[in-house]
Amino acid sequence: MRNLFDIDPWKIIESKFDPSKQKQAESIFSIGNGSFGQRANFEENYSGPSLQGSYIGGVYYPDKTRVGWWKNGYPEYFAKVLNSTNWIGIQISIDGEQLDLHNQQIKHFHRELDMKTGILKRMVRVVFANGKELAIESTRFCSMAREEIGAIAYTVTPLNFSGNVKFTTYLDGNVTNHDANYDEFFWLEDSRKVDLQKGIICTRTKKTDFCVATAMRFSFWKEKELLTIHPNSFQRELYVENNFEHYLEQGIAYTLKKYVAITSTINHSEFELAAKAIKRVRDAYTTGFDILRQEHEAAWAEIWQSADIVIDGDVASQQGIRFNIFHLYQTYTGKNAKLNIGPKGFTGEKYGGATYWDTEAYCLPFYLKTADPKVARQLLVYRYNHLDRAIENAEKLGFKDGAALYPMVTMNGEECHNEWEITFEEIHRNGAIAFGIYNYVRHTGDVEYLETFGLPVLAGIARFWAQRFNWSEAKQAYVMLGVTGPNEYENNVNNNWYTNYIARWCISYCLQVNAKIQRSLPEKLTTREVEQFNHIVDHVYFPVLEGTEVFLQQDGFMDKEQLSASDIPSAQRPINQHWSWDRILRSIFIKQADVLQGIYLFEDHFSLEQIKENFDFYEPKTVHESSLSPCVHVILAAKIGRLDKALELYLRTSRLDLDDYNHEADEGLHITSMAGTWMSVVEGLAGVRVYEDGLAITPQIPSAWQRYSFQIRYQNEPLIIDVSQKEIKITNLGSKLLSCELAGVNIEIEANATYQAALK
Amino acid sequence: MRNLFDIDPWKIIESKFDPSKQKQAESIFSIGNGSFGQRANFEENYSGPSLQGSYIGGVYYPDKTRVGWWKNGYPEYFAKVLNSTNWIGIQISIDGEQLDLHNQQIKHFHRELDMKTGILKRMVRVVFANGKELAIESTRFCSMAREEIGAIAYTVTPLNFSGNVKFTTYLDGNVTNHDANYDEFFWLEDSRKVDLQKGIICTRTKKTDFCVATAMRFSFWKEKELLTIHPNSFQRELYVENNFEHYLEQGIAYTLKKYVAITSTINHSEFELAAKAIKRVRDAYTTGFDILRQEHEAAWAEIWQSADIVIDGDVASQQGIRFNIFHLYQTYTGKNAKLNIGPKGFTGEKYGGATYWDTEAYCLPFYLKTADPKVARQLLVYRYNHLDRAIENAEKLGFKDGAALYPMVTMNGEECHNEWEITFEEIHRNGAIAFGIYNYVRHTGDVEYLETFGLPVLAGIARFWAQRFNWSEAKQAYVMLGVTGPNEYENNVNNNWYTNYIARWCISYCLQVNAKIQRSLPEKLTTREVEQFNHIVDHVYFPVLEGTEVFLQQDGFMDKEQLSASDIPSAQRPINQHWSWDRILRSIFIKQADVLQGIYLFEDHFSLEQIKENFDFYEPKTVHESSLSPCVHVILAAKIGRLDKALELYLRTSRLDLDDYNHEADEGLHITSMAGTWMSVVEGLAGVRVYEDGLAITPQIPSAWQRYSFQIRYQNEPLIIDVSQKEIKITNLGSKLLSCELAGVNIEIEANATYQAALK
Repeated sequence: MRNLFDIDPWKIIESKFDPSKQKQAESIFSIGNGSFGQRANFEENYSGPSLQGSYIGGVYYPDKTRVGWWKNGYPEYFAKVLNSTNWIGIQISIDGEQLDLHNQQIKHFHRELDMKTGILKRMVRVVFANGKELAIESTRFCSMAREEIGAIAYTVTPLNFSGNVKFTTYLDGNVTNHDANYDEFFWLEDSRKVDLQKGIICTRTKKTDFCVATAMRFSFWKEKELLTIHPNSFQRELYVENNFEHYLEQGIAYTLKKYVAITSTINHSEFELAAKAIKRVRDAYTTGFDILRQEHEAAWAEIWQSADIVIDGDVASQQGIRFNIFHLYQTYTGKNAKLNIGPKGFTGEKYGGATYWDTEAYCLPFYLKTADPKVARQLLVYRYNHLDRAIENAEKLGFKDGAALYPMVTMNGEECHNEWEITFEEIHRNGAIAFGIYNYVRHTGDVEYLETFGLPVLAGIARFWAQRFNWSEAKQAYVMLGVTGPNEYENNVNNNWYTNYIARWCISYCLQVNAKIQRSLPEKLTTREVEQFNHIVDHVYFPVLEGTEVFLQQDGFMDKEQLSASDIPSAQRPINQHWSWDRILRSIFIKQADVLQGIYLFEDHFSLEQIKENFDFYEPKTVHESSLSPCVHVILAAKIGRLDKALELYLRTSRLDLDDYNHEADEGLHITSMAGTWMSVVEGLAGVRVYEDGLAITPQIPSAWQRYSFQIRYQNEPLIIDVSQKEIKITNLGSKLLSCELAGVNIEIEANATYQAALK
Repeated sequence: MRNLFDIDPWKIIESKFDPSKQKQAESIFSIGNGSFGQRANFEENYSGPSLQGSYIGGVYYPDKTRVGWWKNGYPEYFAKVLNSTNWIGIQISIDGEQLDLHNQQIKHFHRELDMKTGILKRMVRVVFANGKELAIESTRFCSMAREEIGAIAYTVTPLNFSGNVKFTTYLDGNVTNHDANYDEFFWLEDSRKVDLQKGIICTRTKKTDFCVATAMRFSFWKEKELLTIHPNSFQRELYVENNFEHYLEQGIAYTLKKYVAITSTINHSEFELAAKAIKRVRDAYTTGFDILRQEHEAAWAEIWQSADIVIDGDVASQQGIRFNIFHLYQTYTGKNAKLNIGPKGFTGEKYGGATYWDTEAYCLPFYLKTADPKVARQLLVYRYNHLDRAIENAEKLGFKDGAALYPMVTMNGEECHNEWEITFEEIHRNGAIAFGIYNYVRHTGDVEYLETFGLPVLAGIARFWAQRFNWSEAKQAYVMLGVTGPNEYENNVNNNWYTNYIARWCISYCLQVNAKIQRSLPEKLTTREVEQFNHIVDHVYFPVLEGTEVFLQQDGFMDKEQLSASDIPSAQRPINQHWSWDRILRSIFIKQADVLQGIYLFEDHFSLEQIKENFDFYEPKTVHESSLSPCVHVILAAKIGRLDKALELYLRTSRLDLDDYNHEADEGLHITSMAGTWMSVVEGLAGVRVYEDGLAITPQIPSAWQRYSFQIRYQNEPLIIDVSQKEIKITNLGSKLLSCELAGVNIEIEANATYQAALK
């Protein structure tokens, strides 16, 4: 696999313009601040292949469902995050010819995204048809410090002439979603206004009535000198612009500084929206680009301090892991309980920017260990806020008495997905949401959460499972029919081991939490429910391979032709692009960890021998055609001492998008799986485990690395783990004595002390 | 259930106009001649709710597939029979006001379809806004004698005035399909021409390049006197018309006789198409309406002679059974191997007018017993002609070496359907096609067919099954994973008993036919195949209910909650309109005969006890939400002596569309299931069985009927079976001695003799 862009520990660098890579680059160089995000589209017009994308977290539209054959229970629409007003637009023209890198000769091109600072920079030298040559340098960011502010410094230097250059800066609300089901236009204009060096557009989504105000101001500089200009303003529906022509002197840098504020009804009332945007952009304008940038960089520095993983000795791995951490924080910062983490974040339209079980299964562990507990808590509260909808969702499918089924895909708690085998059957997602609560509590010790927010959700989920199991007279046990497990290469199977396991665990955990809560709460289980739930917990059926410790993925699994992924000719990989769907379903091949996902989550329920036996059974059958798969195998492989296997799989995940293994980075990045990559290092290589009753660390290091280190939080106290070929150092940055198990030995570390030991 | 229209042994009568029934009536009063068909739309404009429909057998368009989520292997398009040039159009206006039954006062309305003659008639008295009252009488038919001719006599009588009335007669190619996936217009105009009292439009389908020429001529009569008129002609794209005003005298009947010829490239070369249409319509015009009508009625008389079922003592049942027979013959006459039987025939757009397994499983037995063997043979040859496509279809799914998978839905042999659980998994259809060959041979004795057309198809099908089974090490048997049986309320199941059974039978029958054919043919099985096929036949796994003779529908069936259809609250029936899809899938409820379908097909493989045990197990679980279901249960119920159950289910099927039980007749009729109704009488009540080595009859009669009788063909010789409460009469109309088994006793009947016996 060739690297797509240059290797650097902190930066993503594109040192030569290749139009065929532009859409990939637009995704990979995306910037965002958890509140809104922007693909790395050029500020100026670009007539080559490009996917324009400017997204605002939580602003969605219910796009009418498109199906071939309607099934009862399908939702009427698919909520998708919308491409919103283009705020970066700046246009340059000379003698009537527009700057457009698709048409002009490019003498030099350099684009870099500095992950340390969250700044996207581009330097270009371009020759116009009449021979006039310009240097362009653009610098932009979505402020991490001011979540409604974006800023651009756009510098133009005439290289071989002095003369007039026309600058146009605009906001354009005429934007569509590439993936709209019926090519619908989703926006209405509420109002617009344009004046000297400023403008605003207020737009409103059809149906959902989200309002967005986008306000701009700009200034124009000759090197360090602020120029007075007299721009013309122009407007039409959903569009405002200022334009002006200026005489530029050869060799002098002229900079247009554009400030934009984006406010929405996610955070403001409709009535103050425009005023807020105007105020925010005025503040930004007054503050100025350099100070805004400093604030932004300081915010990133704080994130990196607690979230960075340092890898010495392997720059590609270093760049890869930072790329993942960087994009996770660009997507979600935990400031707003209305927001969540779409599988593509703000980097593309695919999957509609909606929330999947990825959040609880993959992202939550990342934020639990790298951020203030409030961040993870927001993610849990998001689901708590959707509980009523989850109950309605279950009712639509025929469940009752407060049973809750969380949706597969959602923006507002309602189900959006429309594939029966997923929508109705991939119900294990409910388990991940309950597990998220458990995981949060064991990381943070915040048991009070259970009473206020936890129990209602756990009870709804447990009630669902209790109804979803049915008693089999034949087996004299509870069975679960017609499900799709995490391995989506099986549909409508009976007794998926993972689903049965997590379902039983949910019921059992709910019983446990219910028993602990003394206070009378409306959501508490009735005596009859307690009895019934206990009966289920004691009588769930699990398929096993007789004479072994192998848990069978589902009933009938051993009837399949027993093959290994290595039996598939490489020309037929990935099988999801080469085989018909029925062939995939019939085959033994596993898209992503399924039984192993369960063993990963509940590792302490199983002996090392059981884990080994199941890993050896399933890993050869797994084709890892989901980005969420390898990390689980990495962690288990490391656990059972297969460091080579762990590293092989780790490399596959850490640069997945950066090197675009799957040829789909043009559509956006695999944001949620990036958390899995992080887990691969922390839980896999470093063997970090957080149990209800303690912390354990069992570090290993690949021979190719000299050293790696990272910080985690445990019970809201930070510690640093630093592993080299020779030794491990654990630094307790917290204020209390830290007890933990290191490679099986109990140790204690004083506050602000470092424990050092040889690596075995 | 109230009857939708009046009861009559031969006619469907609507004696009062109810606009809310218009779309249902348009389906139910449809006429056709196996070559083209026409919904019972009014000739004049009608601005009320209506589904315009004029279809030409075999003329289809590949409408671009619409799905929510693409699966590998889906076809790119869904071929659908197109709504074609409106040929019935006649418009009447007085003083500028158009006749439109939606707007005018209707004083009298009578519509009747005479099934004996295939004539659709309508008598209306209507008052115009200005008080002028007209009587309209229209008579039309699609000629059964001349398959490219349609004719209309449209009589207008001024009742309370003498004055000018304007007549417009036209052809209009501006027609769309209501069910077009992307609202596409499917037709291009090749040419048009209009002259005095005649006109022609030649149209062409986009992409598929089917050409259709529609030519009209007309004459105008004052009672029996041919009038000379001087019409104006008018044309625009895809439209030609003649119009003229005439002074009508009060109380005198004026008749416009419109003749239409429809030719297409299904039967003619593109170059002679228009000339043929012009010639055909001139011939029809010269022949005249009355003679054309006589020819048409004579053709119907011939059909009824061999296909009628007489039921004395129950007019509703009599009407019901004739309605079914009538529509079957309107849909398919067996004259053209390019045509087949769409589930809705020419009565609506739904299911795209394409071919399903319904043809072999339901329609073939009907034509085998009621028509010349050539008719059934055409149906088989249709599939033979599609063999190469079936092999390609299997290749797309990963099969090889000549394995053939016939499509679920097709117009030209290519698969059209796009629901993975059906398209890729409802593969039992392959078995029905092989069984059709077997059934044809045992009915007709035409063993030569096997060598010329049979073996290639059987070998392709057997090769598919041999690859589709896989060896289960766990079971030490061949299993078949991931299928959908006839019961579509189960998807992606393992070891569907029906599919495994018919698959094994196909392999076995292919071996048998292969062994009989001495000649060397390229399609013959290799020695290795013979060996492998025999191994499979000996080692197929079948799920059974331990300790019983019940064949289990699929693996895991007994894990379901064991309920009866009677447990479902009636407000929740049909479940397909009330339950979510996953709930249906998980439930035990069966949409249509599945194990029982297999027992029906291979009845002689099972003991009466086995049949009883399986019937008693499955019938209570079957919700019969497919129109194809009840007939199989009727036949088996009659077989095991449950005449009441048989009659209860028979009544449900025989008037399904006529009384519109399922509230969907507006979209078209369930043509293919009509053959099942016929089978209910012949194979169910009369107990007719055709075996390889003979004919058996075991008649019963419901107590509500006085008598029923029908004719069948056996080995291409006709016989009449006549059953009354007291006795059974079998009349051998053939030229040879007839041997058969009557209620278990072997009898012989001389040519032209009648055998009479008391009914036990």
